[in-house]
Amino acid sequence: MAHTILNKLVIIGVGLIGGSFALALRKAGIVQHIVGVGRSQENMQRALNLGVIDEMAIDPASALHNADAVLLAMPVGQTRHIMAQIAPHLEAGTLLTDVGSTKQDVITAARTCLTDNLKNFVPGHPIAGAELSGVEAAQADLFRGKPLILTPLAETNPHALEQVTAWWQSCGAQVSQMNADEHDKILAATSHLPHILAFTLMNHLRNSSTNHPDDLLRFAGSGFRDFTRIAGSSPEMWRDICLANREALLTQIDAYQNELKLLQELLKNNEGDALEQAFSQARGMRENWLKNKD
Amino acid sequence: MAHTILNKLVIIGVGLIGGSFALALRKAGIVQHIVGVGRSQENMQRALNLGVIDEMAIDPASALHNADAVLLAMPVGQTRHIMAQIAPHLEAGTLLTDVGSTKQDVITAARTCLTDNLKNFVPGHPIAGAELSGVEAAQADLFRGKPLILTPLAETNPHALEQVTAWWQSCGAQVSQMNADEHDKILAATSHLPHILAFTLMNHLRNSSTNHPDDLLRFAGSGFRDFTRIAGSSPEMWRDICLANREALLTQIDAYQNELKLLQELLKNNEGDALEQAFSQARGMRENWLKNKD
Repeated sequence: MAHTILNKLVIIGVGLIGGSFALALRKAGIVQHIVGVGRSQENMQRALNLGVIDEMAIDPASALHNADAVLLAMPVGQTRHIMAQIAPHLEAGTLLTDVGSTKQDVITAARTCLTDNLKNFVPGHPIAGAELSGVEAAQADLFRGKPLILTPLAETNPHALEQVTAWWQSCGAQVSQMNADEHDKILAATSHLPHILAFTLMNHLRNSSTNHPDDLLRFAGSGFRDFTRIAGSSPEMWRDICLANREALLTQIDAYQNELKLLQELLKNNEGDALEQAFSQARGMRENWLKNKD
Repeated sequence: MAHTILNKLVIIGVGLIGGSFALALRKAGIVQHIVGVGRSQENMQRALNLGVIDEMAIDPASALHNADAVLLAMPVGQTRHIMAQIAPHLEAGTLLTDVGSTKQDVITAARTCLTDNLKNFVPGHPIAGAELSGVEAAQADLFRGKPLILTPLAETNPHALEQVTAWWQSCGAQVSQMNADEHDKILAATSHLPHILAFTLMNHLRNSSTNHPDDLLRFAGSGFRDFTRIAGSSPEMWRDICLANREALLTQIDAYQNELKLLQELLKNNEGDALEQAFSQARGMRENWLKNKD
Protein backbone atom coordinates (compact mmCIF):
# COMPACT_ATOMS: atom_id res chain seq x y z
CA MET A 1 0.00 0.00 0.00
CA ALA A 2 1.31 3.44 -0.94
CA HIS A 3 2.22 5.63 2.00
CA THR A 4 1.16 9.21 2.14
CA ILE A 5 3.73 11.24 4.02
CA LEU A 6 2.23 12.88 7.09
CA ASN A 7 3.30 16.51 7.18
CA LYS A 8 1.91 17.00 10.66
CA LEU A 9 0.97 14.33 13.19
CA VAL A 10 -0.55 15.27 16.54
CA ILE A 11 -0.18 12.82 19.42
CA ILE A 12 -2.38 13.43 22.43
CA GLY A 13 -0.86 11.57 25.37
CA VAL A 14 2.85 10.95 24.76
CA GLY A 15 3.49 7.93 26.97
CA LEU A 16 4.70 4.43 26.17
CA ILE A 17 2.25 3.84 23.33
CA GLY A 18 2.00 7.35 21.89
CA GLY A 19 5.77 7.75 22.09
CA SER A 20 6.45 4.39 20.47
CA PHE A 21 4.04 5.24 17.62
CA ALA A 22 5.95 8.50 17.07
CA LEU A 23 9.31 6.72 17.02
CA ALA A 24 8.06 3.94 14.72
CA LEU A 25 6.55 6.32 12.12
CA ARG A 26 9.67 8.47 12.25
CA LYS A 27 11.85 5.40 11.69
CA ALA A 28 9.61 4.38 8.76
CA GLY A 29 10.19 7.86 7.33
CA ILE A 30 6.55 8.67 6.83
CA VAL A 31 6.16 11.63 9.16
CA GLN A 32 7.64 15.14 8.91
CA HIS A 33 6.61 16.89 12.10
CA ILE A 34 5.17 15.55 15.34
CA VAL A 35 3.33 17.70 17.85
CA GLY A 36 2.76 16.33 21.34
CA VAL A 37 -0.15 17.37 23.51
CA GLY A 38 -0.36 16.34 27.17
CA ARG A 39 -1.42 17.35 30.63
CA SER A 40 2.08 17.14 32.09
CA GLN A 41 4.45 19.88 30.91
CA GLU A 42 7.32 17.91 32.43
CA ASN A 43 6.50 14.77 30.43
CA MET A 44 6.14 16.80 27.22
CA GLN A 45 9.55 18.34 27.85
CA ARG A 46 11.04 14.86 28.28
CA ALA A 47 9.40 13.72 25.03
CA LEU A 48 10.93 16.74 23.31
CA ASN A 49 14.37 16.11 24.82
CA LEU A 50 14.24 12.47 23.77
CA GLY A 51 13.42 13.49 20.20
CA VAL A 52 10.08 11.67 20.31
CA ILE A 53 8.17 14.84 19.40
CA ASP A 54 9.27 17.99 17.56
CA GLU A 55 7.00 20.43 19.31
CA MET A 56 4.83 20.52 22.37
CA ALA A 57 1.45 22.18 22.65
CA ILE A 58 -0.83 22.86 25.57
CA ASP A 59 -3.67 24.25 23.50
CA PRO A 60 -5.27 21.67 21.14
CA ALA A 61 -6.63 24.39 18.81
CA SER A 62 -3.24 25.52 17.51
CA ALA A 63 -1.88 21.97 17.55
CA LEU A 64 -4.67 20.73 15.29
CA HIS A 65 -4.28 23.47 12.68
CA ASN A 66 -3.33 21.83 9.37
CA ALA A 67 -2.86 18.42 11.04
CA ASP A 68 -2.97 15.38 8.73
CA ALA A 69 -3.47 12.94 11.55
CA VAL A 70 -4.27 12.77 15.25
CA LEU A 71 -3.47 9.83 17.54
CA LEU A 72 -5.34 9.66 20.84
CA ALA A 73 -3.05 7.84 23.27
CA MET A 74 -4.07 9.09 26.71
CA PRO A 75 -5.77 6.78 29.29
CA VAL A 76 -9.20 5.64 27.96
CA GLY A 77 -11.03 7.36 30.82
CA GLN A 78 -10.18 10.75 29.28
CA THR A 79 -11.46 9.89 25.80
CA ARG A 80 -14.80 11.69 25.97
CA HIS A 81 -13.32 14.80 27.51
CA ILE A 82 -10.51 15.03 24.95
CA MET A 83 -12.78 14.27 21.99
CA ALA A 84 -15.17 17.03 23.05
CA GLN A 85 -12.21 19.38 23.39
CA ILE A 86 -10.71 18.69 19.97
CA ALA A 87 -13.90 18.22 17.93
CA PRO A 88 -14.41 21.94 17.11
CA HIS A 89 -10.81 22.19 15.86
CA LEU A 90 -10.67 19.08 13.67
CA GLU A 91 -10.33 20.03 10.02
CA ALA A 92 -12.13 18.21 7.20
CA GLY A 93 -9.02 16.38 6.05
CA THR A 94 -7.67 15.37 9.47
CA LEU A 95 -7.74 11.62 10.16
CA LEU A 96 -8.19 10.46 13.74
CA THR A 97 -7.33 7.17 15.41
CA ASP A 98 -6.85 5.94 18.97
CA VAL A 99 -5.14 3.16 20.92
CA GLY A 100 -7.68 2.51 23.67
CA SER A 101 -7.76 -0.98 25.18
CA THR A 102 -11.57 -0.93 25.02
CA LYS A 103 -13.46 0.04 21.90
CA GLN A 104 -17.21 0.25 22.50
CA ASP A 105 -16.88 3.10 24.98
CA VAL A 106 -14.51 4.97 22.67
CA ILE A 107 -17.01 4.62 19.81
CA THR A 108 -19.86 5.83 22.03
CA ALA A 109 -17.79 8.90 22.91
CA ALA A 110 -16.94 9.46 19.24
CA ARG A 111 -20.61 9.29 18.20
CA THR A 112 -21.45 11.91 20.81
CA CYS A 113 -18.54 14.27 20.22
CA LEU A 114 -17.22 14.02 16.69
CA THR A 115 -20.36 14.53 14.54
CA ASP A 116 -18.98 15.78 11.17
CA ASN A 117 -15.60 14.12 11.65
CA LEU A 118 -16.91 10.73 12.70
CA LYS A 119 -16.19 9.34 9.21
CA ASN A 120 -12.50 10.21 9.65
CA PHE A 121 -12.20 8.27 12.92
CA VAL A 122 -10.72 4.75 12.87
CA PRO A 123 -10.73 3.14 16.35
CA GLY A 124 -7.68 0.97 16.97
CA HIS A 125 -5.96 -1.11 19.64
CA PRO A 126 -2.34 -2.28 19.49
CA ILE A 127 -1.85 -5.47 21.55
CA ALA A 128 1.54 -4.41 22.78
CA GLY A 129 2.74 -2.89 25.96
CA ALA A 130 4.93 -3.34 28.92
CA GLU A 131 4.53 -2.96 32.63
CA LEU A 132 6.60 0.18 32.19
CA SER A 133 4.83 3.42 31.44
CA GLY A 134 5.94 6.87 30.35
CA VAL A 135 7.70 8.23 27.30
CA GLU A 136 11.12 7.02 28.55
CA ALA A 137 9.94 3.47 27.89
CA ALA A 138 8.92 4.23 24.29
CA GLN A 139 10.66 2.26 21.54
CA ALA A 140 10.36 2.23 17.76
CA ASP A 141 9.88 -1.54 17.54
CA LEU A 142 7.25 -1.92 20.27
CA PHE A 143 4.57 -2.88 17.72
CA ARG A 144 6.73 -5.05 15.46
CA GLY A 145 5.07 -8.44 14.89
CA LYS A 146 2.31 -7.59 17.38
CA PRO A 147 -1.42 -7.76 16.64
CA LEU A 148 -3.26 -4.52 16.03
CA ILE A 149 -7.05 -4.52 15.90
CA LEU A 150 -9.05 -1.87 14.06
CA THR A 151 -12.78 -1.64 14.76
CA PRO A 152 -14.11 0.65 12.00
CA LEU A 153 -17.66 2.01 12.17
CA ALA A 154 -20.25 1.65 9.42
CA GLU A 155 -19.65 5.36 8.76
CA THR A 156 -15.86 5.09 8.53
CA ASN A 157 -14.47 6.48 5.28
CA PRO A 158 -12.63 3.67 3.40
CA HIS A 159 -9.75 6.05 2.66
CA ALA A 160 -9.33 6.76 6.37
CA LEU A 161 -9.33 3.03 7.15
CA GLU A 162 -6.75 2.44 4.43
CA GLN A 163 -4.45 5.18 5.73
CA VAL A 164 -4.63 4.14 9.38
CA THR A 165 -3.97 0.54 8.34
CA ALA A 166 -0.90 1.70 6.43
CA TRP A 167 0.49 3.65 9.41
CA TRP A 168 0.28 0.64 11.70
CA GLN A 169 1.75 -1.63 9.06
CA SER A 170 4.66 0.81 8.87
CA CYS A 171 5.14 0.20 12.59
CA GLY A 172 5.42 -3.53 11.82
CA ALA A 173 2.06 -4.45 13.38
CA GLN A 174 -0.18 -7.27 12.12
CA VAL A 175 -3.38 -5.41 11.43
CA SER A 176 -6.79 -7.08 11.58
CA GLN A 177 -10.38 -5.83 11.78
CA MET A 178 -13.37 -6.87 13.87
CA ASN A 179 -16.38 -5.19 15.40
CA ALA A 180 -15.99 -3.36 18.69
CA ASP A 181 -18.26 -5.69 20.64
CA GLU A 182 -16.24 -8.73 19.65
CA HIS A 183 -13.00 -6.89 20.43
CA ASP A 184 -14.14 -6.01 23.93
CA LYS A 185 -15.25 -9.57 24.71
CA ILE A 186 -11.99 -11.10 23.47
CA LEU A 187 -9.83 -8.62 25.35
CA ALA A 188 -11.86 -9.07 28.54
CA ALA A 189 -10.84 -12.74 28.43
CA THR A 190 -7.21 -12.54 27.29
CA SER A 191 -6.08 -9.27 28.85
CA HIS A 192 -8.45 -7.60 31.31
CA LEU A 193 -9.18 -10.75 33.34
CA PRO A 194 -5.47 -11.70 33.70
CA HIS A 195 -4.70 -8.18 34.93
CA ILE A 196 -7.45 -8.45 37.54
CA LEU A 197 -6.11 -11.85 38.61
CA ALA A 198 -2.54 -10.57 38.96
CA PHE A 199 -3.57 -7.46 40.93
CA THR A 200 -5.72 -9.72 43.12
CA LEU A 201 -2.83 -12.08 43.87
CA MET A 202 -0.69 -9.22 45.17
CA ASN A 203 -3.53 -7.92 47.34
CA HIS A 204 -4.31 -11.42 48.55
CA LEU A 205 -0.71 -11.87 49.73
CA ARG A 206 -0.88 -8.50 51.40
CA ASN A 207 -4.18 -9.00 53.20
CA SER A 208 -4.80 -12.60 53.98
CA SER A 209 -1.58 -14.09 55.20
CA THR A 210 -0.28 -14.50 58.71
CA ASN A 211 3.21 -13.93 57.29
CA HIS A 212 4.43 -10.44 56.56
CA PRO A 213 4.30 -9.94 52.77
CA ASP A 214 8.05 -9.23 52.62
CA ASP A 215 8.76 -12.58 54.27
CA LEU A 216 6.50 -14.33 51.80
CA LEU A 217 8.03 -12.63 48.79
CA ARG A 218 11.59 -13.36 49.87
CA PHE A 219 10.95 -16.86 48.59
CA ALA A 220 9.02 -15.97 45.47
CA GLY A 221 10.68 -17.21 42.31
CA SER A 222 10.71 -16.43 38.62
CA GLY A 223 7.30 -18.05 38.11
CA PHE A 224 5.82 -15.56 40.54
CA ARG A 225 7.70 -12.68 38.95
CA ASP A 226 6.33 -13.45 35.48
CA PHE A 227 2.82 -14.22 36.71
CA THR A 228 2.62 -10.84 38.45
CA ARG A 229 4.43 -8.77 35.81
CA ILE A 230 1.12 -7.24 34.67
CA ALA A 231 0.34 -6.23 38.27
CA GLY A 232 3.00 -3.57 37.66
CA SER A 233 0.74 -1.84 35.10
CA SER A 234 -0.65 1.66 35.50
CA PRO A 235 -3.47 1.70 38.11
CA GLU A 236 -5.17 4.68 36.46
CA MET A 237 -5.14 3.08 33.03
CA TRP A 238 -6.50 -0.18 34.40
CA ARG A 239 -9.20 1.52 36.42
CA ASP A 240 -10.41 3.12 33.19
CA ILE A 241 -10.21 -0.12 31.20
CA CYS A 242 -12.11 -2.10 33.85
CA LEU A 243 -14.86 0.49 34.11
CA ALA A 244 -15.10 0.85 30.33
CA ASN A 245 -15.42 -2.89 29.78
CA ARG A 246 -17.28 -3.61 32.99
CA GLU A 247 -20.01 -5.98 31.79
CA ALA A 248 -17.74 -8.22 29.74
CA LEU A 249 -15.14 -8.29 32.51
CA LEU A 250 -17.69 -9.15 35.23
CA THR A 251 -18.88 -12.05 33.07
CA GLN A 252 -15.28 -13.24 32.74
CA ILE A 253 -14.62 -12.98 36.48
CA ASP A 254 -17.77 -14.98 37.25
CA ALA A 255 -16.85 -17.73 34.84
CA TYR A 256 -13.27 -17.79 36.12
CA GLN A 257 -14.49 -18.14 39.71
CA ASN A 258 -16.56 -21.14 38.63
CA GLU A 259 -13.60 -22.74 36.86
CA LEU A 260 -11.47 -22.19 39.97
CA LYS A 261 -14.19 -23.79 42.12
CA LEU A 262 -14.10 -26.88 39.90
CA LEU A 263 -10.38 -27.29 40.47
CA GLN A 264 -10.84 -26.60 44.17
CA GLU A 265 -13.42 -29.42 44.37
CA LEU A 266 -11.07 -31.85 42.63
CA LEU A 267 -8.39 -30.97 45.14
CA LYS A 268 -10.80 -31.24 48.09
CA ASN A 269 -11.74 -34.72 46.95
CA ASN A 270 -8.15 -35.80 46.30
CA GLU A 271 -8.96 -36.52 42.66
CA GLY A 272 -5.38 -36.79 41.44
CA ASP A 273 -6.13 -38.15 37.98
CA ALA A 274 -8.67 -35.43 37.22
CA LEU A 275 -6.28 -32.74 38.50
CA GLU A 276 -3.49 -34.03 36.29
CA GLN A 277 -5.86 -34.10 33.33
CA ALA A 278 -6.97 -30.51 33.98
CA PHE A 279 -3.33 -29.37 34.18
CA SER A 280 -2.50 -31.32 31.00
CA GLN A 281 -5.33 -29.67 29.09
CA ALA A 282 -4.17 -26.25 30.24
CA ARG A 283 -0.58 -26.95 29.27
CA GLY A 284 -1.58 -28.46 25.93
CA MET A 285 -3.64 -25.42 25.03
CA ARG A 286 -0.76 -23.10 25.86
CA GLU A 287 1.79 -25.18 23.91
CA ASN A 288 -0.54 -25.18 20.93
CA TRP A 289 -0.89 -21.42 21.12
CA LEU A 290 2.88 -20.84 21.26
CA LYS A 291 3.36 -23.17 18.28
CA ASN A 292 0.74 -21.33 16.21
CA LYS A 293 2.16 -17.94 17.15
CA ASP A 294 5.54 -18.60 15.56
CA MET B 1 32.95 -23.55 54.67
CA ALA B 2 35.35 -26.32 53.65
CA HIS B 3 34.06 -28.57 50.92
CA THR B 4 34.37 -32.29 51.15
CA ILE B 5 34.81 -33.78 47.72
CA LEU B 6 32.00 -36.21 46.91
CA ASN B 7 33.50 -39.36 45.47
CA LYS B 8 30.13 -40.72 44.50
CA LEU B 9 26.86 -38.82 44.15
CA VAL B 10 23.63 -40.64 43.30
CA ILE B 11 20.83 -38.62 41.69
CA ILE B 12 17.43 -40.25 41.62
CA GLY B 13 15.36 -38.50 38.95
CA VAL B 14 17.66 -36.79 36.45
CA GLY B 15 15.38 -34.07 35.07
CA LEU B 16 15.70 -30.29 35.06
CA ILE B 17 16.51 -30.00 38.78
CA GLY B 18 18.50 -33.20 39.30
CA GLY B 19 20.44 -32.55 36.09
CA SER B 20 21.18 -28.94 36.98
CA PHE B 21 22.43 -29.99 40.43
CA ALA B 22 24.78 -32.48 38.77
CA LEU B 23 26.11 -29.86 36.34
CA ALA B 24 26.50 -27.23 39.09
CA LEU B 25 28.44 -29.52 41.46
CA ARG B 26 30.58 -30.72 38.59
CA LYS B 27 31.35 -27.12 37.60
CA ALA B 28 32.23 -26.34 41.23
CA GLY B 29 34.65 -29.26 41.10
CA ILE B 30 33.34 -30.97 44.20
CA VAL B 31 32.09 -34.23 42.74
CA GLN B 32 34.04 -37.14 41.20
CA HIS B 33 31.45 -39.54 39.92
CA ILE B 34 27.70 -39.13 39.38
CA VAL B 35 25.30 -42.05 39.09
CA GLY B 36 21.83 -41.41 37.70
CA VAL B 37 18.82 -43.53 38.63
CA GLY B 38 15.51 -43.15 36.83
CA ARG B 39 12.45 -44.92 35.53
CA SER B 40 13.08 -43.95 31.91
CA GLN B 41 16.03 -45.72 30.30
CA GLU B 42 15.78 -43.28 27.40
CA ASN B 43 16.08 -40.24 29.66
CA MET B 44 19.03 -41.79 31.54
CA GLN B 45 20.76 -42.41 28.22
CA ARG B 46 20.25 -38.75 27.26
CA ALA B 47 21.67 -37.64 30.62
CA LEU B 48 24.69 -39.85 29.97
CA ASN B 49 25.13 -38.51 26.42
CA LEU B 50 24.89 -34.93 27.66
CA GLY B 51 27.60 -35.60 30.25
CA VAL B 52 25.23 -34.82 33.11
CA ILE B 53 25.84 -38.23 34.72
CA ASP B 54 28.77 -40.64 34.45
CA GLU B 55 26.84 -43.84 34.90
CA MET B 56 23.25 -44.97 34.85
CA ALA B 57 21.69 -47.52 37.15
CA ILE B 58 18.33 -49.20 37.18
CA ASP B 59 18.86 -50.99 40.46
CA PRO B 60 19.21 -48.65 43.49
CA ALA B 61 21.09 -51.29 45.51
CA SER B 62 24.24 -51.22 43.40
CA ALA B 63 23.96 -47.49 42.81
CA LEU B 64 23.96 -46.77 46.53
CA HIS B 65 27.02 -48.86 47.34
CA ASN B 66 29.72 -46.55 48.72
CA ALA B 67 27.69 -43.44 47.88
CA ASP B 68 28.63 -40.25 49.76
CA ALA B 69 25.43 -38.48 48.87
CA VAL B 70 21.99 -39.09 47.40
CA LEU B 71 19.78 -36.42 45.85
CA LEU B 72 16.09 -37.26 45.47
CA ALA B 73 14.84 -35.25 42.48
CA MET B 74 11.90 -37.21 41.12
CA PRO B 75 8.29 -35.88 41.32
CA VAL B 76 7.24 -35.56 45.00
CA GLY B 77 4.45 -38.11 44.55
CA GLN B 78 7.07 -40.87 44.28
CA THR B 79 8.94 -39.91 47.44
CA ARG B 80 7.54 -42.54 49.76
CA HIS B 81 7.96 -45.34 47.24
CA ILE B 82 11.55 -44.40 46.43
CA MET B 83 12.50 -43.86 50.08
CA ALA B 84 11.17 -47.31 50.98
CA GLN B 85 13.10 -48.76 48.08
CA ILE B 86 16.45 -47.18 48.94
CA ALA B 87 16.25 -47.32 52.77
CA PRO B 88 17.67 -50.87 53.11
CA HIS B 89 20.65 -49.92 50.92
CA LEU B 90 21.64 -46.62 52.53
CA GLU B 91 25.01 -46.88 54.24
CA ALA B 92 25.78 -45.24 57.58
CA GLY B 93 27.85 -42.46 56.01
CA THR B 94 25.55 -41.64 53.09
CA LEU B 95 23.93 -38.21 53.29
CA LEU B 96 20.50 -37.75 51.76
CA THR B 97 18.69 -34.65 50.57
CA ASP B 98 15.76 -33.88 48.29
CA VAL B 99 14.33 -31.05 46.19
CA GLY B 100 10.61 -31.55 46.74
CA SER B 101 8.38 -28.47 46.44
CA THR B 102 6.51 -29.56 49.56
CA LYS B 103 8.28 -30.54 52.76
CA GLN B 104 5.85 -31.87 55.38
CA ASP B 105 4.84 -34.84 53.24
CA VAL B 106 8.48 -35.62 52.43
CA ILE B 107 9.33 -35.56 56.13
CA THR B 108 6.38 -37.82 56.96
CA ALA B 109 7.63 -40.30 54.35
CA ALA B 110 11.17 -40.05 55.71
CA ARG B 111 10.02 -40.76 59.27
CA THR B 112 8.22 -43.86 58.06
CA CYS B 113 10.87 -45.20 55.72
CA LEU B 114 14.33 -44.09 56.74
CA THR B 115 14.53 -45.11 60.43
CA ASP B 116 18.32 -45.42 61.11
CA ASN B 117 19.27 -42.98 58.39
CA LEU B 118 16.78 -40.27 59.32
CA LYS B 119 19.56 -38.25 60.95
CA ASN B 120 21.42 -38.11 57.63
CA PHE B 121 18.43 -36.69 55.76
CA VAL B 122 18.28 -32.92 55.11
CA PRO B 123 15.04 -31.91 53.33
CA GLY B 124 15.55 -29.09 50.83
CA HIS B 125 13.76 -27.04 48.21
CA PRO B 126 15.45 -24.91 45.56
CA ILE B 127 13.18 -22.05 44.44
CA ALA B 128 14.29 -22.31 40.85
CA GLY B 129 12.79 -23.87 37.83
CA ALA B 130 11.46 -23.27 34.41
CA GLU B 131 8.37 -24.29 32.52
CA LEU B 132 10.69 -26.64 30.67
CA SER B 133 11.25 -30.06 32.07
CA GLY B 134 13.67 -32.88 31.33
CA VAL B 135 17.42 -33.23 31.46
CA GLU B 136 17.88 -31.33 28.17
CA ALA B 137 16.82 -28.18 30.02
CA ALA B 138 19.37 -28.67 32.82
CA GLN B 139 21.94 -25.92 33.29
CA ALA B 140 24.83 -25.41 35.72
CA ASP B 141 23.69 -21.93 36.79
CA LEU B 142 20.00 -22.69 37.38
CA PHE B 143 20.35 -22.16 41.14
CA ARG B 144 22.71 -19.16 41.04
CA GLY B 145 21.33 -16.31 43.18
CA LYS B 146 18.13 -18.27 43.82
CA PRO B 147 16.72 -19.04 47.26
CA LEU B 148 17.11 -22.52 48.63
CA ILE B 149 15.22 -23.55 51.74
CA LEU B 150 16.38 -26.35 54.04
CA THR B 151 13.88 -27.70 56.58
CA PRO B 152 16.03 -29.83 58.91
CA LEU B 153 14.40 -32.14 61.47
CA ALA B 154 15.12 -32.09 65.20
CA GLU B 155 17.00 -35.36 64.57
CA THR B 156 19.13 -34.01 61.71
CA ASN B 157 22.84 -34.47 62.27
CA PRO B 158 24.55 -31.01 62.29
CA HIS B 159 27.32 -32.37 60.08
CA ALA B 160 24.76 -33.48 57.47
CA LEU B 161 23.10 -30.06 57.56
CA GLU B 162 26.48 -28.38 57.14
CA GLN B 163 27.42 -30.54 54.17
CA VAL B 164 24.12 -30.14 52.33
CA THR B 165 24.30 -26.38 52.94
CA ALA B 166 27.78 -26.36 51.41
CA TRP B 167 26.66 -28.27 48.28
CA TRP B 168 23.90 -25.80 47.56
CA GLN B 169 26.15 -22.85 48.24
CA SER B 170 28.53 -24.33 45.66
CA CYS B 171 25.61 -24.16 43.21
CA GLY B 172 25.35 -20.43 43.98
CA ALA B 173 22.08 -20.73 45.89
CA GLN B 174 21.12 -18.48 48.82
CA VAL B 175 20.50 -21.03 51.54
CA SER B 176 18.10 -20.42 54.41
CA GLN B 177 16.38 -22.61 57.00
CA MET B 178 12.84 -22.77 58.33
CA ASN B 179 10.49 -25.43 59.61
CA ALA B 180 8.57 -27.55 57.13
CA ASP B 181 5.15 -26.25 58.16
CA GLU B 182 6.17 -22.67 57.54
CA HIS B 183 7.78 -23.63 54.23
CA ASP B 184 4.62 -25.29 52.98
CA LYS B 185 2.41 -22.34 53.93
CA ILE B 186 4.69 -19.81 52.26
CA LEU B 187 5.03 -21.84 49.08
CA ALA B 188 1.28 -22.45 48.92
CA ALA B 189 0.87 -18.67 48.70
CA THR B 190 3.75 -17.69 46.43
CA SER B 191 4.00 -20.70 44.14
CA HIS B 192 1.26 -23.31 44.37
CA LEU B 193 -1.63 -20.83 44.24
CA PRO B 194 -0.24 -18.93 41.20
CA HIS B 195 0.18 -22.25 39.36
CA ILE B 196 -3.44 -23.15 40.08
CA LEU B 197 -4.54 -19.70 38.89
CA ALA B 198 -2.58 -19.97 35.64
CA PHE B 199 -3.84 -23.49 34.87
CA THR B 200 -7.36 -22.27 35.66
CA LEU B 201 -7.09 -19.34 33.26
CA MET B 202 -6.21 -21.64 30.36
CA ASN B 203 -9.09 -23.99 31.19
CA HIS B 204 -11.45 -21.06 31.63
CA LEU B 205 -10.61 -19.79 28.13
CA ARG B 206 -11.10 -23.29 26.80
CA ASN B 207 -14.43 -24.01 28.46
CA SER B 208 -16.39 -20.87 29.03
CA SER B 209 -16.08 -18.73 25.96
CA THR B 210 -18.32 -18.48 22.94
CA ASN B 211 -15.17 -17.85 20.90
CA HIS B 212 -12.98 -20.72 19.84
CA PRO B 213 -9.88 -20.67 22.08
CA ASP B 214 -7.59 -20.30 19.04
CA ASP B 215 -9.46 -17.15 18.00
CA LEU B 216 -9.15 -15.75 21.50
CA LEU B 217 -5.47 -16.49 21.76
CA ARG B 218 -4.63 -14.96 18.40
CA PHE B 219 -4.93 -11.62 20.17
CA ALA B 220 -3.19 -12.57 23.40
CA GLY B 221 -0.12 -10.46 24.06
CA SER B 222 3.07 -10.68 26.06
CA GLY B 223 1.23 -10.02 29.33
CA PHE B 224 -0.82 -13.14 28.75
CA ARG B 225 2.26 -15.12 27.74
CA ASP B 226 4.10 -14.26 30.96
CA PHE B 227 1.05 -14.71 33.17
CA THR B 228 0.48 -18.21 31.83
CA ARG B 229 4.13 -19.28 31.61
CA ILE B 230 3.72 -21.49 34.70
CA ALA B 231 0.70 -23.20 33.09
CA GLY B 232 3.35 -24.89 30.92
CA SER B 233 4.68 -26.78 33.96
CA SER B 234 4.60 -30.55 34.34
CA PRO B 235 1.03 -31.75 35.09
CA GLU B 236 2.27 -34.80 36.97
CA MET B 237 4.59 -32.76 39.18
CA TRP B 238 1.86 -30.24 39.94
CA ARG B 239 -0.71 -32.91 40.69
CA ASP B 240 1.70 -34.28 43.29
CA ILE B 241 2.49 -30.86 44.75
CA CYS B 242 -1.19 -29.91 45.03
CA LEU B 243 -2.13 -33.18 46.72
CA ALA B 244 0.88 -33.03 49.05
CA ASN B 245 0.11 -29.48 50.17
CA ARG B 246 -3.65 -29.81 49.90
CA GLU B 247 -4.77 -28.14 53.13
CA ALA B 248 -2.57 -25.07 52.83
CA LEU B 249 -3.44 -24.70 49.15
CA LEU B 250 -7.19 -24.98 49.75
CA THR B 251 -6.90 -22.25 52.36
CA GLN B 252 -5.07 -20.07 49.85
CA ILE B 253 -7.64 -20.68 47.10
CA ASP B 254 -10.49 -19.77 49.47
CA ALA B 255 -8.82 -16.55 50.55
CA TYR B 256 -7.98 -15.68 46.93
CA GLN B 257 -11.60 -16.21 45.89
CA ASN B 258 -12.64 -13.79 48.61
CA GLU B 259 -10.13 -11.19 47.49
CA LEU B 260 -11.34 -11.57 43.90
CA LYS B 261 -14.95 -11.12 45.06
CA LEU B 262 -13.97 -7.84 46.74
CA LEU B 263 -12.57 -6.49 43.48
CA GLN B 264 -15.60 -7.82 41.61
CA GLU B 265 -17.89 -5.89 43.97
CA LEU B 266 -15.93 -2.68 43.46
CA LEU B 267 -16.30 -3.13 39.72
CA LYS B 268 -20.02 -3.98 39.98
CA ASN B 269 -20.56 -0.76 41.92
CA ASN B 270 -18.43 1.36 39.56
CA GLU B 271 -16.12 2.33 42.42
CA GLY B 272 -13.33 3.78 40.32
CA ASP B 273 -11.33 5.34 43.13
CA ALA B 274 -11.31 2.17 45.20
CA LEU B 275 -10.34 0.10 42.14
CA GLU B 276 -7.45 2.41 41.38
CA GLN B 277 -6.34 2.25 45.01
CA ALA B 278 -6.45 -1.57 44.98
CA PHE B 279 -4.37 -1.66 41.79
CA SER B 280 -1.93 0.88 43.25
CA GLN B 281 -1.44 -1.19 46.38
CA ALA B 282 -0.80 -4.26 44.27
CA ARG B 283 1.69 -2.45 42.07
CA GLY B 284 3.41 -0.82 45.03
CA MET B 285 3.90 -4.16 46.75
CA ARG B 286 5.40 -5.66 43.61
CA GLU B 287 7.73 -2.70 43.02
CA ASN B 288 8.88 -2.90 46.61
CA TRP B 289 9.59 -6.61 46.22
CA LEU B 290 11.63 -6.12 43.04
CA LYS B 291 13.62 -3.34 44.71
CA ASN B 292 14.43 -5.51 47.74
CA LYS B 293 15.38 -8.48 45.58
CA ASP B 294 18.23 -6.66 43.85
